[in-house]
Amino acid sequence: MHLRFVTAGESHGKALAVIVEGLPAGLPVTAEWVDRDLARRMQGYGRGARMKIERDCIEWIAGVRAGETLGSPVAMLIHNRDWANWEEIMAAEGPQGELRRRRVTRPRPGHVDLSGVLKYDRIDARDVLERASARETAARVAAGALARRLLDEFGVEIGSHVVSVGGIDAHVPGELPRPLNEAADRSEVRVLDPAAEATIIQRVDRAKKDGDTLGGEIEVVARGVVAGLGSHVSWDRKLDGRLAGILMSIPAVKGVGIGMGFEAARRPGSEVHDPIRAGGPGRSARRLSPLDEQCRRA
Amino acid sequence: MHLRFVTAGESHGKALAVIVEGLPAGLPVTAEWVDRDLARRMQGYGRGARMKIERDCIEWIAGVRAGETLGSPVAMLIHNRDWANWEEIMAAEGPQGELRRRRVTRPRPGHVDLSGVLKYDRIDARDVLERASARETAARVAAGALARRLLDEFGVEIGSHVVSVGGIDAHVPGELPRPLNEAADRSEVRVLDPAAEATIIQRVDRAKKDGDTLGGEIEVVARGVVAGLGSHVSWDRKLDGRLAGILMSIPAVKGVGIGMGFEAARRPGSEVHDPIRAGGPGRSARRLSPLDEQCRRA
Amino acid sequence: MHLRFVTAGESHGKALAVIVEGLPAGLPVTAEWVDRDLARRMQGYGRGARMKIERDCIEWIAGVRAGETLGSPVAMLIHNRDWANWEEIMAAEGPQGELRRRRVTRPRPGHVDLSGVLKYDRIDARDVLERASARETAARVAAGALARRLLDEFGVEIGSHVVSVGGIDAHVPGELPRPLNEAADRSEVRVLDPAAEATIIQRVDRAKKDGDTLGGEIEVVARGVVAGLGSHVSWDRKLDGRLAGILMSIPAVKGVGIGMGFEAARRPGSEVHDPIRAGGPGRSARRLSPLDEQCRRA
Amino acid sequence: MHLRFVTAGESHGKALAVIVEGLPAGLPVTAEWVDRDLARRMQGYGRGARMKIERDCIEWIAGVRAGETLGSPVAMLIHNRDWANWEEIMAAEGPQGELRRRRVTRPRPGHVDLSGVLKYDRIDARDVLERASARETAARVAAGALARRLLDEFGVEIGSHVVSVGGIDAHVPGELPRPLNEAADRSEVRVLDPAAEATIIQRVDRAKKDGDTLGGEIEVVARGVVAGLGSHVSWDRKLDGRLAGILMSIPAVKGVGIGMGFEAARRPGSEVHDPIRAGGPGRSARRLSPLDEQCRRA
Repeated sequence: MHLRFVTAGESHGKALAVIVEGLPAGLPVTAEWVDRDLARRMQGYGRGARMKIERDCIEWIAGVRAGETLGSPVAMLIHNRDWANWEEIMAAEGPQGELRRRRVTRPRPGHVDLSGVLKYDRIDARDVLERASARETAARVAAGALARRLLDEFGVEIGSHVVSVGGIDAHVPGELPRPLNEAADRSEVRVLDPAAEATIIQRVDRAKKDGDTLGGEIEVVARGVVAGLGSHVSWDRKLDGRLAGILMSIPAVKGVGIGMGFEAARRPGSEVHDPIRAGGPGRSARRLSPLDEQCRRA
Repeated sequence: MHLRFVTAGESHGKALAVIVEGLPAGLPVTAEWVDRDLARRMQGYGRGARMKIERDCIEWIAGVRAGETLGSPVAMLIHNRDWANWEEIMAAEGPQGELRRRRVTRPRPGHVDLSGVLKYDRIDARDVLERASARETAARVAAGALARRLLDEFGVEIGSHVVSVGGIDAHVPGELPRPLNEAADRSEVRVLDPAAEATIIQRVDRAKKDGDTLGGEIEVVARGVVAGLGSHVSWDRKLDGRLAGILMSIPAVKGVGIGMGFEAARRPGSEVHDPIRAGGPGRSARRLSPLDEQCRRA
Repeated sequence: MHLRFVTAGESHGKALAVIVEGLPAGLPVTAEWVDRDLARRMQGYGRGARMKIERDCIEWIAGVRAGETLGSPVAMLIHNRDWANWEEIMAAEGPQGELRRRRVTRPRPGHVDLSGVLKYDRIDARDVLERASARETAARVAAGALARRLLDEFGVEIGSHVVSVGGIDAHVPGELPRPLNEAADRSEVRVLDPAAEATIIQRVDRAKKDGDTLGGEIEVVARGVVAGLGSHVSWDRKLDGRLAGILMSIPAVKGVGIGMGFEAARRPGSEVHDPIRAGGPGRSARRLSPLDEQCRRA
Repeated sequence: MHLRFVTAGESHGKALAVIVEGLPAGLPVTAEWVDRDLARRMQGYGRGARMKIERDCIEWIAGVRAGETLGSPVAMLIHNRDWANWEEIMAAEGPQGELRRRRVTRPRPGHVDLSGVLKYDRIDARDVLERASARETAARVAAGALARRLLDEFGVEIGSHVVSVGGIDAHVPGELPRPLNEAADRSEVRVLDPAAEATIIQRVDRAKKDGDTLGGEIEVVARGVVAGLGSHVSWDRKLDGRLAGILMSIPAVKGVGIGMGFEAARRPGSEVHDPIRAGGPGRSARRLSPLDEQCRRA
């Protein structure tokens, strides 16, 4: 089995669409399962107005019947709840050329606006920024929810928490709570450290007042992963490379580390390599460190 | 530029979905252009009841704004106009197991029903046949209409006509009419030979009365093609292979020929190779035979 | 598991190279197994001088150790035994521009020469024809031998025989002999019909004398294939399309049929669909016709 | 044009092989150009004995003629100069099972040995580690040298230097020297800071004496890059993601940052976004920061 997915959709377009191909047949799925992940994506202290108004949910278009995948491609839509206000501007059959409303002609720093209009020969930067928007990740979250549903059948848990915001580090407990996401969601800024939470919230409030933004770091943890995912045999099948490529394709992510990440570059090898320990009954050996990756987003 | 597309959708599901990735920005497109091809797909003497009731048309979901492509993936839906009658049977959240209505347990000859239920471990063959149905080609026609829109900008015309039905050959004129599709559409069975048309219609009527079906052959012709599409450098970039693979992936197509097709196997090489002729002003040389392919479907 | 392969090499270059990725580890393979298929490729009545002189054999470069695959990519070379005579003309570091020997400036009909020099902006058509040559299929045969080795472990036998040459049809027995390849190899022209063999040989001799060439048709048969290869769920995973695409990418192949092929277009559906028969003990049902494809080459 | 490449070869096998597909025809290339990059790969203070003995150089197998690419796949071999000493152990047709020499049964920490033998069901971990070895990157360097040759035609320069080793940071000048690689190569440890160089060498010497290893960070810089590489339209075409995925697929690389990298997570957005400045004659606007990425390896 080989999963592939493709997304479509502009930030203020009619809807986002995603097709996921390669899921096995017979996997139980519900819209609630996917919507829960979409809801998590919209949480967060200090998010924009849109995040507050909207509540994303999927519409099944294909590939699921009677609560189970069919093995055929799964298609989902995430409708734009504010479409009525955008239809005139974004409609497929709307006004061309001079008549376009809300035309964007000033490219923003830190965005693809300038190189996008050059590459695609556009006058209105909206033609670029609507697709480049991080809104597109909602479609990826929906696809990811199905992938997590599949992993869930094998006892794999994927969770994440915030480890720093705006340069303020949250303390990370030696033993992470389970399930990780539920523990992180108890914090408005998803840290596992109540003291840091208060400081971070103050920092966010100040940045907001200053008309500025903040970055942060998150740690993603996969537990219960079976040995042997990915492969050493070819450069494009290596798990580290696959994960890093996918994470860095998220807008605003500018750094990815696996395991210790950059810290590994500063320590001697003897402190970096994960020891192999003889296992208990039924397991001959295992490596001590779980697969975990972390990425920071600005 | 490299076009790729993926389709989703069950025959009696809510809708077919298709995402086309890789189209350039700024290509003028309209729903009418796509719908015209969808309408052509539904014509044909003796088609089933569904073909008569339905009139497919697309809904733009993404990738098109103000009548132009954005360079981003284009997503389209083709709604099932009979969904109200199928919702209970095909809904994503419908009844599981024993409660399923219109369960199909008798696999049909000449279909993927049997191998599909084995491969995907299904009890209800409907879980397989709904996706295996040739209905899926409507999504491909929509994708193809966009590709034809692009080719149209370069003066490439792609057309087709029927050359035989049920063993009755239609006469093919030495010089094909232009535009080919319009000429073919003047015939109820899309042949360029009125005499054969009458015979074919009788043959179809008889087959229908007998509860049988007929196959046929079609010729697809591309005119105005620039030299050098595809490539000789790698087996998976050869134009012949690409075309044959795509055509043979259409349900019921069991044979594909390029140029002379199988006839080339029966003639000496001296009658098969296309001569190269010195060109007129501005063209140094050209080959006499245009790219043309033909495929028969049973 | 997903097999992929890539070939390199010019017809009169130093060697052909092929890398096959995705084979499982632990598959027993020998150079003899691969060389046997390469030898079969070179047989055939009336082949050119090169075919008679050469005897292709592979050199393992990577991916095989102690008679077993490692799971890593398998790399093989097929050396050009006539390299000494071609080194000056084909060397990577040879003379540029005007000094090139055996420059080809007259494009041949029925070959990619003309469109190749246009597409790749070449003056010497040799830069195109050396790669476009059917010599490249030797690398594919080597890759295919490994794939057949894998299928062999599952009891799948793939064989072929010639069914017509130059318009002369060979009688095909109702029950094909096993193993098919050995039976076919007993004939100089690989037909299963001694009477037709004699006529075909005469026909080939005459064509040779006339400075002409002949085409023919071959039937490829796979036996012991497990149900469910390929998939109905997406157009690019359909077995028919995959097979047709690969076969039509072979130079000179201009037609491909699956099962009945084009004959299916002339018969009523009732004679085309393969019946499903209740199986014996341990098998619930099976379809009567095995997977078989045929292709003609000119 | 779309470049793809595949490598094969075990660390102590007969040779590494690489096939690069998609290069345009007519690109001037020489073995010297590729070998120079291979030689750079082998430099470095404190490298193992093998690095000192060996001097990698490529053998052209295909795709290059008279000093130019043909547009066809380019195949290269990098022979193992120590093959005579490894032939008995690594030969394709060597002894099976118990007779194997230098069998590795103790999986090393920090390597794929354990998960590799589990995934590929091997007894001798050598079957895994030979392919997992960073030796494979020599084949990638050869492929990369061809890609750099192509970029060179467009005035793009790609260079790198070391920014830290074992936790010792080298000072990075505000304006990087050009050409960057030549400047870096003047240092035994490839830093642009002579003072740090001395300290790093001491640190390496000590680690060596202690039987330990060190990690470090490198900065890769691309200059002269045209705007618009990659694309915002689909997640798998984003430049950041592509670069990160490729870099992280290199063994021992555990972190990748683009531009500021993780530092971006700690600063306010106002300090992170690259300003857009109106350009001089002939250039309307440009962004101030060049594309640069950095990665650390442990």
